[in-house]
Amino acid sequence: MPASAPAPDPLTTAGTRSEHDLLGDRDVPAAAYYGVHTLRAVENFPITGTPISAHPDLVTALAAVKQAAAQANRDLGLLDAAKADAIVAACEEIRAGRLHDQFVVDVVQGGAGTSTNMNANEVVANRALELLGHAKGDYRHLHPLEDVNAGQSTNDVYPTAVRLSLHLAAARLLDAMAVLRDAFAAKAGEFADVLKMGRTQLQDAVPMTLGQEFAAYAVMLDEDRARLDEATALLREINLGGTAIGTGLNAHPRYAATACGHLGRITGIPFTVAGDLVEATQDMGAFVQLSGVLKRIAVKLSKTCNDLRLLSCGPRAGLAEINLPPVQAGSSIMPGKVNPVIPEVVNQIAYEVIGNDVTVTMAAESGQLQLNAFEPVIAHSLLKSLAHLRAGCLTLAERCVGGITANREHLARLVGQSIGLATALNPHIGYEQATAVAQEALTTGASVHDLVLAKGLLTPERLQEILHPDNLARPHARAAAV
Amino acid sequence: MPASAPAPDPLTTAGTRSEHDLLGDRDVPAAAYYGVHTLRAVENFPITGTPISAHPDLVTALAAVKQAAAQANRDLGLLDAAKADAIVAACEEIRAGRLHDQFVVDVVQGGAGTSTNMNANEVVANRALELLGHAKGDYRHLHPLEDVNAGQSTNDVYPTAVRLSLHLAAARLLDAMAVLRDAFAAKAGEFADVLKMGRTQLQDAVPMTLGQEFAAYAVMLDEDRARLDEATALLREINLGGTAIGTGLNAHPRYAATACGHLGRITGIPFTVAGDLVEATQDMGAFVQLSGVLKRIAVKLSKTCNDLRLLSCGPRAGLAEINLPPVQAGSSIMPGKVNPVIPEVVNQIAYEVIGNDVTVTMAAESGQLQLNAFEPVIAHSLLKSLAHLRAGCLTLAERCVGGITANREHLARLVGQSIGLATALNPHIGYEQATAVAQEALTTGASVHDLVLAKGLLTPERLQEILHPDNLARPHARAAAV
Amino acid sequence: MPASAPAPDPLTTAGTRSEHDLLGDRDVPAAAYYGVHTLRAVENFPITGTPISAHPDLVTALAAVKQAAAQANRDLGLLDAAKADAIVAACEEIRAGRLHDQFVVDVVQGGAGTSTNMNANEVVANRALELLGHAKGDYRHLHPLEDVNAGQSTNDVYPTAVRLSLHLAAARLLDAMAVLRDAFAAKAGEFADVLKMGRTQLQDAVPMTLGQEFAAYAVMLDEDRARLDEATALLREINLGGTAIGTGLNAHPRYAATACGHLGRITGIPFTVAGDLVEATQDMGAFVQLSGVLKRIAVKLSKTCNDLRLLSCGPRAGLAEINLPPVQAGSSIMPGKVNPVIPEVVNQIAYEVIGNDVTVTMAAESGQLQLNAFEPVIAHSLLKSLAHLRAGCLTLAERCVGGITANREHLARLVGQSIGLATALNPHIGYEQATAVAQEALTTGASVHDLVLAKGLLTPERLQEILHPDNLARPHARAAAV
Amino acid sequence: MPASAPAPDPLTTAGTRSEHDLLGDRDVPAAAYYGVHTLRAVENFPITGTPISAHPDLVTALAAVKQAAAQANRDLGLLDAAKADAIVAACEEIRAGRLHDQFVVDVVQGGAGTSTNMNANEVVANRALELLGHAKGDYRHLHPLEDVNAGQSTNDVYPTAVRLSLHLAAARLLDAMAVLRDAFAAKAGEFADVLKMGRTQLQDAVPMTLGQEFAAYAVMLDEDRARLDEATALLREINLGGTAIGTGLNAHPRYAATACGHLGRITGIPFTVAGDLVEATQDMGAFVQLSGVLKRIAVKLSKTCNDLRLLSCGPRAGLAEINLPPVQAGSSIMPGKVNPVIPEVVNQIAYEVIGNDVTVTMAAESGQLQLNAFEPVIAHSLLKSLAHLRAGCLTLAERCVGGITANREHLARLVGQSIGLATALNPHIGYEQATAVAQEALTTGASVHDLVLAKGLLTPERLQEILHPDNLARPHARAAAV
Repeated sequence: MPASAPAPDPLTTAGTRSEHDLLGDRDVPAAAYYGVHTLRAVENFPITGTPISAHPDLVTALAAVKQAAAQANRDLGLLDAAKADAIVAACEEIRAGRLHDQFVVDVVQGGAGTSTNMNANEVVANRALELLGHAKGDYRHLHPLEDVNAGQSTNDVYPTAVRLSLHLAAARLLDAMAVLRDAFAAKAGEFADVLKMGRTQLQDAVPMTLGQEFAAYAVMLDEDRARLDEATALLREINLGGTAIGTGLNAHPRYAATACGHLGRITGIPFTVAGDLVEATQDMGAFVQLSGVLKRIAVKLSKTCNDLRLLSCGPRAGLAEINLPPVQAGSSIMPGKVNPVIPEVVNQIAYEVIGNDVTVTMAAESGQLQLNAFEPVIAHSLLKSLAHLRAGCLTLAERCVGGITANREHLARLVGQSIGLATALNPHIGYEQATAVAQEALTTGASVHDLVLAKGLLTPERLQEILHPDNLARPHARAAAV
Repeated sequence: MPASAPAPDPLTTAGTRSEHDLLGDRDVPAAAYYGVHTLRAVENFPITGTPISAHPDLVTALAAVKQAAAQANRDLGLLDAAKADAIVAACEEIRAGRLHDQFVVDVVQGGAGTSTNMNANEVVANRALELLGHAKGDYRHLHPLEDVNAGQSTNDVYPTAVRLSLHLAAARLLDAMAVLRDAFAAKAGEFADVLKMGRTQLQDAVPMTLGQEFAAYAVMLDEDRARLDEATALLREINLGGTAIGTGLNAHPRYAATACGHLGRITGIPFTVAGDLVEATQDMGAFVQLSGVLKRIAVKLSKTCNDLRLLSCGPRAGLAEINLPPVQAGSSIMPGKVNPVIPEVVNQIAYEVIGNDVTVTMAAESGQLQLNAFEPVIAHSLLKSLAHLRAGCLTLAERCVGGITANREHLARLVGQSIGLATALNPHIGYEQATAVAQEALTTGASVHDLVLAKGLLTPERLQEILHPDNLARPHARAAAV
Repeated sequence: MPASAPAPDPLTTAGTRSEHDLLGDRDVPAAAYYGVHTLRAVENFPITGTPISAHPDLVTALAAVKQAAAQANRDLGLLDAAKADAIVAACEEIRAGRLHDQFVVDVVQGGAGTSTNMNANEVVANRALELLGHAKGDYRHLHPLEDVNAGQSTNDVYPTAVRLSLHLAAARLLDAMAVLRDAFAAKAGEFADVLKMGRTQLQDAVPMTLGQEFAAYAVMLDEDRARLDEATALLREINLGGTAIGTGLNAHPRYAATACGHLGRITGIPFTVAGDLVEATQDMGAFVQLSGVLKRIAVKLSKTCNDLRLLSCGPRAGLAEINLPPVQAGSSIMPGKVNPVIPEVVNQIAYEVIGNDVTVTMAAESGQLQLNAFEPVIAHSLLKSLAHLRAGCLTLAERCVGGITANREHLARLVGQSIGLATALNPHIGYEQATAVAQEALTTGASVHDLVLAKGLLTPERLQEILHPDNLARPHARAAAV
Repeated sequence: MPASAPAPDPLTTAGTRSEHDLLGDRDVPAAAYYGVHTLRAVENFPITGTPISAHPDLVTALAAVKQAAAQANRDLGLLDAAKADAIVAACEEIRAGRLHDQFVVDVVQGGAGTSTNMNANEVVANRALELLGHAKGDYRHLHPLEDVNAGQSTNDVYPTAVRLSLHLAAARLLDAMAVLRDAFAAKAGEFADVLKMGRTQLQDAVPMTLGQEFAAYAVMLDEDRARLDEATALLREINLGGTAIGTGLNAHPRYAATACGHLGRITGIPFTVAGDLVEATQDMGAFVQLSGVLKRIAVKLSKTCNDLRLLSCGPRAGLAEINLPPVQAGSSIMPGKVNPVIPEVVNQIAYEVIGNDVTVTMAAESGQLQLNAFEPVIAHSLLKSLAHLRAGCLTLAERCVGGITANREHLARLVGQSIGLATALNPHIGYEQATAVAQEALTTGASVHDLVLAKGLLTPERLQEILHPDNLARPHARAAAV
């Protein structure tokens, strides 16, 4: 797809305007809100075919940062009110969802996000020019760099916008995880009394309830949500005001605090300025941490989906403990086959997220000296991981977990036949004798229950008490109650 | 973006037709070439927002496989000629680039590719129905499963189509790598006589030419091309005819060979049928191998780009050995700054490819028993890696390497000052004395050349001979000539 | 090395004793403290040649858990005092460093740690038997399973011991990181007034001090220490008392709380019992989180070492900003060459840790149902990562950072020549004019300083003020002071 | 363990000798064959506690390279025969397994292998000195650098030795894979007539034989062996003679070819000299390729072990299709439990190998300019992967696969009950009717066989023919025979 003939602007062929940069003059489509810097970047990076606009959170975040910067510069007397107001108005339009299609540079780009910042500067400037009654491109009245980017550098604007976009996306993932958690918790309640064999190392172990099994999935999600919440907190420390390398060269001494305050008010998120801006400018720690936590979430979601696929293995020749709701025909050749397609797609999301973590790791490690030039692929990877995990959680909750049913009789029968019951007898007849019973049961096909009675090892009443479902699955609750 | 309201068909709201599957009836847009199975899949997998059609090679490959299957079934008397001809005609249209927008299922999907196969079956069937003069959806005349999918299973069709699509994409990557190789080779010629210091462990080592340095990049690409070619060969072994699990149940005994032959003729690629179809159906080895080779290519491209960025570090406070051509303004704050944005974007592609390799690895490892359910994410990852690497190679060749210039005087000066020259004296004045000279040069700032003369260790003539550029950089060529 | 003839016991050939398990009788060396279960495991797992004892923290932790269990069982009346006291005494010996050589099973083992638990049970039992005046192997008096393992399962003992061992190792890593942080902070002070060019994307950017550069490394370490501290906290939630699958079958209702309390007292670490023991038994979240944080530490350590190697590139043909202390001869062929071997070894540790993170990820994802069978490789990977990172931090601090010197004149000269100074002029002469000056400087080789004066763009006094080192590197501090 | 007090030499405290390097004088244990360079390296790299000698293949390979170099230098008149003969004799002793304990430097080391080369130079020199009747350390008679390292650089010696060591280790892995392949093939024969249900996506699919299932594992191993063989071939291209950066400075023009020839004769491996030695010196391609292939092997071994664990899931509440031989007691709490510990340990080896691949990838990507400084961790990772995979293959073959038995009646019963039989009826009663039968069977619990007869869809004879085991599992073989 890429590397051939990038078509920067589908809006119009009706005319062009000329713009200038250090490489010379270039024609830009007259209708385009972006300008020459964006145009060059579109030509330079025909890589993935995915424009910045594919990440709406990032576009929104860029606008919020530009707005905060304009407000700060106005407060500090560095930008006249008319210009500032126009910039603010343009940013608010973008934050409301307009002009996103003007963010056309490929998400994977060289330059540490410079082209993304340039794209934002140009779109904001040209929309602000319009609002001020000027033609797009007439930068004498309001300049993408001198005004929209005043007191800023890509190296503080871009990481700040990326952090904000990740914060927005993480909030939505947290919500989706809660939906999935609730779905598992509801099933845990529904299956609270369904006794089944627990398994360790895929071998029959000791009894438990299906409710306990599903409750564990809900608890895992809650713990993962807590970790994601912690990782998100790190995103709220920003380097806005550090300019090129964190020394704050060319920014007003009060700019950092002022702009950060505005960003907090605009977004409702309590941002703080990093203590050491030189460090903050080059540091990818918060991104690596977030990626690690997303990987953790992926690992556990994948494990859960593996379990769901395993427990529903069948319908005849598998464990067949639970049934996943059918959502589509499973096979183009096998009539009536229904496959666990929803867990399968969540597994694949997990593998993608784990791969993205490696991408983030390598990009973070490769930063040099005062800056990491590879933030674009970090941002892209994380935003994909966040969005896909969210989609996976919602899809799993809505199209799978909610419709799961249990094969109760089958589960009860398996517990009754199980050799794992011998473990419960351990304290009553001793490990040695329990082992002998277990081995005889395995060899002869007899049940542990019958063997114990036949050998007179326990009275029927005592045995019934020991093998009472509550004693098996919740021995301590039972003990407390008795 | 996903997980909300997937809009399966933007073509029309002008009407619908009703279709049926094992879950019941559903309305499909009347204009749509896809059908109910595709519709369900679109609803089930609102994950990435990227449809199958984002990988044109995959769509083309599916059509080629369906065409080969229809031709084989016709040959074997299993499909009447009229139906077969219509299917073939529909497939040829798709291979020519039509109807790609009807491949709407998300690339990341559960079901081992079933939904992709279903999507293909439905589009081919409905287009064939039209060609036969019937209405779309009137499957009595030609059925997506009974006819288009006759003798096939997703489990042999999908892997075969994926292999073909990867083969097509790999061929284009091979071409792009050759373009980049040529660009480096041209520079190697241009810089053949530019003497410079070689470095090991980032410390001045011994002299070489800049031409040798660039020639090495060209050689690396050639070696990587050879590896990619080998990996591609493995893709040509297919499991078409194995049906569900490789036993070939429900396929005609001569179907596999016949269909494979047709596929070869259609594509011009010499496919062969795997020797053990049960193994071939579950085996992801060829994909893992290809991914490993793409990772190898990524590793070396990234290393090369790291070098280019390092050698052009400057303009004043760095190595400043070469100059990369400016392709855009480098900074929104620093006037005149030009950054190595093209190598930077290639680095990021490499990190993405390396991450994709982990995704492929995990997906491949997670296959169970007779099938790997996670081929869709494997295919998606590999197709992305192939396309992005290709874009990276072309971009690097065209927008960077071709315009590189050398700072010849600076390079010569560094060689003259270098302590690394002491190594060349080693055989003539001994390691001990060479070390002493090197240390004195380092401490005093004097040159090795002057110290050797001052100490009378060698005559000026002998020293000049030893330090002759050709002796330093190409001692053996020189020795052979003398 | 492995897979051939494992030699389980080098202690003696003077005699053997016979032991029994479900597979039959086996001779164990008479002097061995381990028993038949350990012997079988040694034979079953001839994999890495690395015994459990290679991780002393794990051996110590196992003893602590066994001690806590015995104390809890005594408190609850489930183990008679004499036996309990002997077990406690044996465990205290092991915790003091004795008998570690009896932990002979390969660290990489199947069985979810069962063999490690068995090894611990047997060593503790046999040492306790000795203390009670009995022969090793005379399990009638004190039994490895009935007594040492009473109320326990591998599935709660092993994860608890692993968590404790990781906690111990992490504490030492935290200390080592503080040593390295201090080393960087000391250099930051020493270099506080050394002006130099900052670089972004390897291109000259704007000035800063070398002190700021080194301070950033210190700050990064502090932030990473905070993250490691958080990750360590998660290790303190244990599942002791959950027995086989978390239901607590066969454990006394008050066992979990009692044993956890004892473990806290024994170790001085405030452990808590997990709220949902079924979840806690199968959950690898804390390990994945720790691994992610270790990867973060590795990423930043590696970035820092990359910088140190880059800044010391030279001595003549590189950046040559700093000098690393020579610690060994650098080359077997190049006289006088000194290489950055200490940063290089830390880079390699980082790559190893990042690889280990993938191992941990895959092992965690592969857990099934009520247990993760792959904890041994998780524990092994994490303990290696912790130990090697610690070694790397200490080595880097002691053998490299402490001895770094700056090439002050060279650094000052580079700032004076730099085109990056144009950025500081930006607010005073405008972006346009600053760009023109920068370009002319680059083309002609003139300095920005001279060009500005020659063109009369600023007065000498004003220019001197703008280019004052403090204004360049710490503009805000300067602004505040003025 | 590391970073504290490295104990370089346990041989003796009986005395020391003094040695000198560019940092000054140091005492070396008198009995030590290594010298001052090794001593410094031991002190500099207290990282993993694993000495070079842990990889015997690497020690052997170093000796082979030193021997080849000495022979070449003698042939070319650069080393007198007495010295050369002594060096050769010393190397042959090392290759025979002697003096390995003198290779004491940590495997993970900075310096691109310099310390390993120095260690080899010193051990060879001192042993050669002894053989010549001189005292160890009396380097006037034979010098580690001037003589043993003559015409060499770490940068050609070390990579060559690493390649040779990997070649040796790979040959042993190939053998072990053949043993495992044979074990699976034997079982495939034994189970050739055991009909069972095949499964796709963990759902009952269509019948096959257990023999086909095991044959696929054997075929996979054969294909992986072919890939490993190809990867090994790349190791045979060496850069010996390139010296520091590949230009061959200080080496005799005929040295490369001569030394390579000797190395081939010494090892019996047909090495060739790389065509471009500058490229070959910096290129890690062969290592990345080998690592990728080892990852491929790991992925498929792990998949196979996952299957074995899944198929033996039970004994009562799982698939219970096969039984793995018990090799140890499975649980410290559950009597009679036997776990799949051998496949589990192989899974863990696979996860380690996959992690090692990421380590190799990062180390390879991080090479700069004319050399990769991180070869030691690449070599260490690959040698571990090769050794552990070999151990895993042998252990799996000998302790698991060989003893696997099938539950034939259970498998036959599952096929009889299976709804997957409906697929075989598809061509005979149509997809629609087959689906209806499948759904009724699922709902009512009836068998497909009985429903078809009850509905009169086929005659009993026809049905029996269709459901004949050979028709189901090997339809084409049957068709050919009939």
